[in-house]
Amino acid sequence: MTDPAVAPARPGAAPPPVVGMVGAGQLARMTAAAATGLGVRFRVLAAAADDSAAQVVADAPVGDYRSADDLLAFAADCDVVTFDHEHVPQPVLHALEGAGYAVSPSSAALQLTQDKLVMRRRLGELGVPVPEVVRVTSQADVEGIADRTDWPVVLKAVSGGYDGRGVWVCRSYAEVADVIAHGVPLLAEEFVPFERELAVLIARSPSGHGAAYPVVQTIQQDGICHEVLAPAPNLAGLVAVDAISLGLRLARDLDVIGLLAVELFETPAGLLVNELAMRPHNSGHWTIEGARTSQFEQHLRAVLNLPLGSPVLTAPCVAMANVLGADDPDMYGKLNHVLAADPALKIQLYGKPVRPGRKVGHVTALGEDMAAARDRATRAARYLATGSEEP
Amino acid sequence: MTDPAVAPARPGAAPPPVVGMVGAGQLARMTAAAATGLGVRFRVLAAAADDSAAQVVADAPVGDYRSADDLLAFAADCDVVTFDHEHVPQPVLHALEGAGYAVSPSSAALQLTQDKLVMRRRLGELGVPVPEVVRVTSQADVEGIADRTDWPVVLKAVSGGYDGRGVWVCRSYAEVADVIAHGVPLLAEEFVPFERELAVLIARSPSGHGAAYPVVQTIQQDGICHEVLAPAPNLAGLVAVDAISLGLRLARDLDVIGLLAVELFETPAGLLVNELAMRPHNSGHWTIEGARTSQFEQHLRAVLNLPLGSPVLTAPCVAMANVLGADDPDMYGKLNHVLAADPALKIQLYGKPVRPGRKVGHVTALGEDMAAARDRATRAARYLATGSEEP
Repeated sequence: MTDPAVAPARPGAAPPPVVGMVGAGQLARMTAAAATGLGVRFRVLAAAADDSAAQVVADAPVGDYRSADDLLAFAADCDVVTFDHEHVPQPVLHALEGAGYAVSPSSAALQLTQDKLVMRRRLGELGVPVPEVVRVTSQADVEGIADRTDWPVVLKAVSGGYDGRGVWVCRSYAEVADVIAHGVPLLAEEFVPFERELAVLIARSPSGHGAAYPVVQTIQQDGICHEVLAPAPNLAGLVAVDAISLGLRLARDLDVIGLLAVELFETPAGLLVNELAMRPHNSGHWTIEGARTSQFEQHLRAVLNLPLGSPVLTAPCVAMANVLGADDPDMYGKLNHVLAADPALKIQLYGKPVRPGRKVGHVTALGEDMAAARDRATRAARYLATGSEEP
Repeated sequence: MTDPAVAPARPGAAPPPVVGMVGAGQLARMTAAAATGLGVRFRVLAAAADDSAAQVVADAPVGDYRSADDLLAFAADCDVVTFDHEHVPQPVLHALEGAGYAVSPSSAALQLTQDKLVMRRRLGELGVPVPEVVRVTSQADVEGIADRTDWPVVLKAVSGGYDGRGVWVCRSYAEVADVIAHGVPLLAEEFVPFERELAVLIARSPSGHGAAYPVVQTIQQDGICHEVLAPAPNLAGLVAVDAISLGLRLARDLDVIGLLAVELFETPAGLLVNELAMRPHNSGHWTIEGARTSQFEQHLRAVLNLPLGSPVLTAPCVAMANVLGADDPDMYGKLNHVLAADPALKIQLYGKPVRPGRKVGHVTALGEDMAAARDRATRAARYLATGSEEP
């Protein structure tokens, strides 16, 4: 409602801080809505003018996240710079930090998410249980692991892989040779026969305060997250405490500012750390409606050194299902049916062109019963993707 | 997270619809966040480039809502035009409708919110209980009401008043004469000795579907909404049913598309309609976190003829308190203390320069007990406004 001037504005207010996020994907898009509520200014550095977040953010300059010049120009109008991905090269991060800009998380923290060998080594030093891992330059490097842990052996790109890209489960030396032929830096990792995958999401602020969301179960197919269940069903109390303690400890020891998502394997022998992310994370999308403070608001609070918000659940059971692109390019046209069938569903569409397998939205269902919530979320996500309720 | 092209985008998707909102105040700002989730495009017509919503919306042209040329140019890039205020003149609305643009709510519906005499007359025709009212051009016009209902008599500007502006409670003919001297078109209304003020918020879509939020109590001072309690405490079940039935009936009979807020007086003799608004409304701000579907998302769903969302409460008690500008211009600087004191509070700051009495934000508290929720919300709102917890 526009508001005619009835008295002069009070002089002397400091303008609210400006948070700049490098990258304009769906994570930045959803962070924008949280920034609106807090009354902080939010800008994104987009790769293209029609990126998911650039569609909705008023201040969305286009630039190359690999260019120190572009990042320095972007940072000049920000009070703090943060990220919706981990791909900004270390020299560019160093240039920002060297110029005195506040970068959260820092280059040192982000390095762990950019190089899985560095991450594994660092976690090992901290006594954190991780799968056994070696650098791979030739087939011979895989022999030790294959001998000790047997096939399959997991090969991973040291940098840049996510959503199942850059991960190869090899069952023979022939398959290993094929992967090595790709020519990307690799590591080999024992195949962990986990019972299920869990994730814990931590926020940490510069003053050292930490907040942990309830531990969730993630359901992945081909390395891509399909579903998240919050809280993780039937999780032993001690395991939940272990996971949260581990997450809080890692956030502190790795000096993470902002969010830290820790992907875990639950095994008969305990928890193993699989991956780290230092940004809002797919395993936390359920928090928009399912937690008192969304992960996006929490990330902003953390990088701004505001007090962290309550991470408690708003319902006994929350299920989130990703909408993964299929053959039908039209997302909006299917909203009608999904919303009519279930008026309490919450949907986020990312405004991204549909490509097969690409995350183009997600659905969240809240309820008293996890099986029911999960059914509602997955059916809607499937319908949005395919126009069919058939699995 | 930016997402490298792994496959070509599927061709043939119709672009999502574009909703254009005339006005760029806080209502448009909060609607923008809802549009992001639904994946629809959202644009606002701002009066100035730094309006509350223009700060956060990517597509925010500046124009004059009183200019048919500006509105026609704005509408040309919208699939539906809606409003964050009711001040667009009827001839401008007719120009839009005449040019074939979808305008929701329509000029005919909006007229009732623009002219209180027309509204009162129309409600009377529909048999809806309203305070007794007459047009006032001279003191003599007030005599009938003053004689029948005694002093005080309420004088109101026929058009344009809100938030206590354009309302005068007169206790003598001398006071009436002072108001008449302002020279604005007036009506006189009996002073209703109400027990409290209630509000009911309805959404209605072009297909005729309606959805009603739980009835709330509003606490006003000097005509300005200070607090909203959802659901209205200790409300007799029959009164709640009456209010919701009345709201749904009015939405239908007045052919409202979008939201209809009905402000009510609860009196010993029953409910009286005080005011109507056809847009997201201050009495519905609590729905952002307190209802499964926020009023902002609901308004978008309605004007887009999408199925309406569930209006159920997400907690037993929800209290909303407005942050009304005081002497301290700095909103953000006080967030630290408020968020630290109560990590579960939800705050919306509007990005507006602080002026005394101006609505510059609001606070929502959810809980099991209304007195406790109300205390949390009002203390935080007071602190944000004044930097003090003293009333």
